[in-house]
Amino acid sequence: MEEFKRKTKGMINLNPLQTGGLLTEEARKALIEWGDGYSVCDFCSGDLEKIKNPPIEDFISKALPEFIEAEAVILTNGAREGKFMIFHALTKPGDIIIVDQNAHYTTFVAAERAGLKIKEVPNSGYPEYKINVEDYRKAIEENENAALLLLTWPDGNYGNLADAKRLAEIAQEYKIPLILNGAYAVGRMPVNLKELGADFIIASGHKSMASSGPIGFIGMKKKWQEKIARKSERYKQKNIEALGCTARGASIMTLMASFPKVKERVKNWNEEVEKARWVSREMEKIGMKQLGEKPHNHDLMFFESENLFKISQTHREGSFFLYKELSKNNIWGIKPGLTKNFKVSTFGVEKKDLEKVLKTFKEILNQ
Amino acid sequence: MEEFKRKTKGMINLNPLQTGGLLTEEARKALIEWGDGYSVCDFCSGDLEKIKNPPIEDFISKALPEFIEAEAVILTNGAREGKFMIFHALTKPGDIIIVDQNAHYTTFVAAERAGLKIKEVPNSGYPEYKINVEDYRKAIEENENAALLLLTWPDGNYGNLADAKRLAEIAQEYKIPLILNGAYAVGRMPVNLKELGADFIIASGHKSMASSGPIGFIGMKKKWQEKIARKSERYKQKNIEALGCTARGASIMTLMASFPKVKERVKNWNEEVEKARWVSREMEKIGMKQLGEKPHNHDLMFFESENLFKISQTHREGSFFLYKELSKNNIWGIKPGLTKNFKVSTFGVEKKDLEKVLKTFKEILNQ
Repeated sequence: MEEFKRKTKGMINLNPLQTGGLLTEEARKALIEWGDGYSVCDFCSGDLEKIKNPPIEDFISKALPEFIEAEAVILTNGAREGKFMIFHALTKPGDIIIVDQNAHYTTFVAAERAGLKIKEVPNSGYPEYKINVEDYRKAIEENENAALLLLTWPDGNYGNLADAKRLAEIAQEYKIPLILNGAYAVGRMPVNLKELGADFIIASGHKSMASSGPIGFIGMKKKWQEKIARKSERYKQKNIEALGCTARGASIMTLMASFPKVKERVKNWNEEVEKARWVSREMEKIGMKQLGEKPHNHDLMFFESENLFKISQTHREGSFFLYKELSKNNIWGIKPGLTKNFKVSTFGVEKKDLEKVLKTFKEILNQ
Repeated sequence: MEEFKRKTKGMINLNPLQTGGLLTEEARKALIEWGDGYSVCDFCSGDLEKIKNPPIEDFISKALPEFIEAEAVILTNGAREGKFMIFHALTKPGDIIIVDQNAHYTTFVAAERAGLKIKEVPNSGYPEYKINVEDYRKAIEENENAALLLLTWPDGNYGNLADAKRLAEIAQEYKIPLILNGAYAVGRMPVNLKELGADFIIASGHKSMASSGPIGFIGMKKKWQEKIARKSERYKQKNIEALGCTARGASIMTLMASFPKVKERVKNWNEEVEKARWVSREMEKIGMKQLGEKPHNHDLMFFESENLFKISQTHREGSFFLYKELSKNNIWGIKPGLTKNFKVSTFGVEKKDLEKVLKTFKEILNQ
């Protein structure tokens, strides 16, 4: 029978969606060990998050909360599902939520699904697209009954890290719960929810915790647990917003298997940021322009590249030339067809591989 | 670092949750090939179900619809998520839905999440617990504005297959959409949605299609596609009820990799039913009583076993004795602690293994 082979396997990967989700060796083993459908349910007595063998209960009730200093954690099928869970549990259709203009599309779609109205806090525009969290005040004052605030931390376009801690203070001042969408934070950088002071943080296993998806979790203040993990009237063990249980298979085992290494890797965050800044400087030396915060504070970066766009206009491969040239050099992660601007992530990419990337860009520009 | 080992691996498995979700060799390979987070998104241009490499688009738009003769198919994170998707798209809070008394707990929880009221069509009680679909008429007439009908086909407790085709006629007569929860049907037995005439059928990859979960799909009549796959106003490619996309990872690849074998195995359904009936007869010979439809029409069976319960009352291991005795004989799937009654599935279990199971039961009873 036909085998489905992944074309990009083994390439130097700069795809922001993918750099944080590459499996560890331990996760690969867990995938095989626990691959069968409903494997983790062997010794379940009705609640996925209470399973002792494998030790899911300890992981959810101790290891994950400790990792991000959250008072409580619940599993989800991913970050978008986590956002919808909170929206659905805490709002009613017609409510207003206030989000940053840099929010991920799934924030808008989850809000649409929940029937919510969205007010956006604008970014600063070209070239940094920063969110000034003080601007949430204006939005709150214009929408007094806003049900929730959400900040994308960092956002998935520019990799900007707005002042989440300050926003949490503002949120408390107005008594509106704050959600941090940390899909690009938790598992990459140190995160301390207690210190940040937000009510919720959203995490993604397949995006940033070396896990096979779909899986994620919500970290939160204890006071929200009752609402978010509200139980069914008929089935007292079953969590309504999770429809009983979410990541009921190998995905949770990859999250658990990778966790020791994920815990270690966040300690290297300063070096990851240094590496990103170095790539930013080197790219600018050869004529690209890094948009978003500068100096940059995250591995996800957006580049403007007029010089590559210019080449594409006369190249026989047109706008696909960049993708093809990079592929030839075993480099993956810039969307096929893009030349004028593109996103990359340097997370976990070895310096020698990034040197090769920079060299390849230079060669492409000097052709 | 600690490795998480699955204790039940390699045992003769009779767990109804698990017999249909054991991976094929092809699915195991796919798991490894596509294990990394967001692996299938390499060449995505905004819609998971339109990805050409790997060939997800063909699978969703051709292979799956053909397999169950559905006019349209959309992916889900599993059967429960599929039910909630339909409830959320087609009803409003306070609406009434009519479901069979044998419905799975997730049907009730999904309805609770969607704010729906549930009217139950009672089963016939002990010992067969059958659903007479004509009884839906009474429920419909008492609840004229019912928004949806749902039948669990088969149910997950007794493995009863009610007359879905007749119910679809009744549904059409009253012009109320009908959902078949086919989590224990699609991938085990031949299913033809056109012939059945229902509006929707719910399928589960990890329960019945040799897939690593969570993953499932909804098969439906074309006329529902617009509502169920309603697109975001802001992001025209993004499906609101799926929050953009659902099974964005290895799970879809295991479903695709196992599919050729799943297509083949449903052709052996008659033999699977024969095997189940043979086990039922043999179990009854040694004093158990099979509840649910008789002769039985599905591999999922419920047994009453007063004789085992009696032993447990004086056994030093108490109610865990059965689980321990079976474990010693490499047999898995009856919930630890059960003796008075239990469920098993014979799906895909080799006859020689079932012979060993029967022999072991005999030995336990003759101790």
